[in-house]
Amino acid sequence: MLPDPDPAAVFDSASAVERLGDGRYAATVQPGWDIGGNANGGYLLAIAGRAMADAVGRPPLSVTAHYLAPAPAGDCTVEVDVVRAGRRMATAGASLRMADGREIIRVLGTFADQQPEDGTSGGGAVLVDGAPPVLPPYEDCQPPTDPVSPAAGPMPALTHRLAVRMRPGDDGFRAGRPTGRAEMAGWFAFRDAAPVDAIGLLLVADAFAPPVFNTELPVAWVPTLELTVHVRGVPAPGPLACVFRSRFVQGGLVEEDGEIWDATGRLVCQSRQLSLTPRGAA
Amino acid sequence: MLPDPDPAAVFDSASAVERLGDGRYAATVQPGWDIGGNANGGYLLAIAGRAMADAVGRPPLSVTAHYLAPAPAGDCTVEVDVVRAGRRMATAGASLRMADGREIIRVLGTFADQQPEDGTSGGGAVLVDGAPPVLPPYEDCQPPTDPVSPAAGPMPALTHRLAVRMRPGDDGFRAGRPTGRAEMAGWFAFRDAAPVDAIGLLLVADAFAPPVFNTELPVAWVPTLELTVHVRGVPAPGPLACVFRSRFVQGGLVEEDGEIWDATGRLVCQSRQLSLTPRGAA
Repeated sequence: MLPDPDPAAVFDSASAVERLGDGRYAATVQPGWDIGGNANGGYLLAIAGRAMADAVGRPPLSVTAHYLAPAPAGDCTVEVDVVRAGRRMATAGASLRMADGREIIRVLGTFADQQPEDGTSGGGAVLVDGAPPVLPPYEDCQPPTDPVSPAAGPMPALTHRLAVRMRPGDDGFRAGRPTGRAEMAGWFAFRDAAPVDAIGLLLVADAFAPPVFNTELPVAWVPTLELTVHVRGVPAPGPLACVFRSRFVQGGLVEEDGEIWDATGRLVCQSRQLSLTPRGAA
Repeated sequence: MLPDPDPAAVFDSASAVERLGDGRYAATVQPGWDIGGNANGGYLLAIAGRAMADAVGRPPLSVTAHYLAPAPAGDCTVEVDVVRAGRRMATAGASLRMADGREIIRVLGTFADQQPEDGTSGGGAVLVDGAPPVLPPYEDCQPPTDPVSPAAGPMPALTHRLAVRMRPGDDGFRAGRPTGRAEMAGWFAFRDAAPVDAIGLLLVADAFAPPVFNTELPVAWVPTLELTVHVRGVPAPGPLACVFRSRFVQGGLVEEDGEIWDATGRLVCQSRQLSLTPRGAA
């Protein structure tokens, strides 16, 4: 993982926000963080979440985004509305609009500091009914490969911004060999090996291909309606073990549940999104 | 299940809203829908969700509430902000405040009509990786019983408003006999056997005791920070089979995942909430 010379390819720069005052922030939806020309939903949430975190002075704990319109690359504005600023937690809403005024996402979130040791090693009640996905070491997993099946479409540009490594087999859908199980697992890392903080987790929660692509279901694309991310800890350095599953596809909708575990085997994030399952091509 | 003579005990009346114009609604947080004097979180979400649904002319599909302050019984106002009204879906935000101006919850949601046949019997892609909890028939399950253990505290008033029946054993924690597993299951029904619609599901999603009460963890109460409800179908008539599980308690926080299935065995709701796990007594 070598540093990328292009700042727009580095997550912290690509999701940077500039404070304009009165809760308003300027940002730029950078090219290359997209799927077929539309910015990734987790990337958009990270931009909004960074503005909200700045406004309330704390990192995200639980944030929910509702997606209103697809976003091409370009300048945007985030308007943050601080709902409550308490002693330990703060709640805020936000709206991200492109320069032409079109609203892209509406966000609601609660923000709070968490300590690195606040995980299973922290004080108080602890229950862990689960484990990280079983993955070969990062070095033994493969990056997503360009599809050999024309039906799979081009590789999303986002893939080239990251250093994701897929669990063997989970990437076979790109070559027309889905696993048959609505699950995607693998390692997440930035290309410059930068540590993933709570803002980064908002991106990670939406950085893998939809689990339904590993089934034979006639689903061509999966536009997100809603994404909720709960930050459950501060990740230790190193790649993150991620697993995303879909259990219920019905009525034209699918949910996707994610778990993100750090290199020490501690859960650091839970995510859930609700998406449409149109038959047609994107 | 006999009709209750008190209108305030009937869910539709207890969660009614009166349109004031300009997106504002008047409502009353009724006594008796509370836990220890503070209104149940699902009940509050149902009041706000009903106002939002009225404002956009569609029932809820995915709603998220962030809880800001406990609510005693009393008059309140819901202010709805319609973010987008599309052909099939609408997105809105809302704020519920007591008459003294104190903000209780902030809500963000997307609203859409779903057809009764939109479930597994509907057209398009279908995947169901799960099943309703295994429960004895409604008539063979017991209502929550008043605690014999003083440590369990009084029975929440909310319990008396509903006709919930617990899976045998899952209610034993009230007598000092937790199952040892962070799970609560049972049947949900209204006392007047009224059908449960999408607004009712917002209540059901928070109507059972916290699953951690079935563990030996030193958790005395579980105030909700955030609750997200995805409506996955229109319930058929009859009691709903519900199961709630907590898998991760760490850093002073616990998530709780719910599944609600109708009498025909179809999933009609998924919920997730993030709550605090304080040691102290409520």
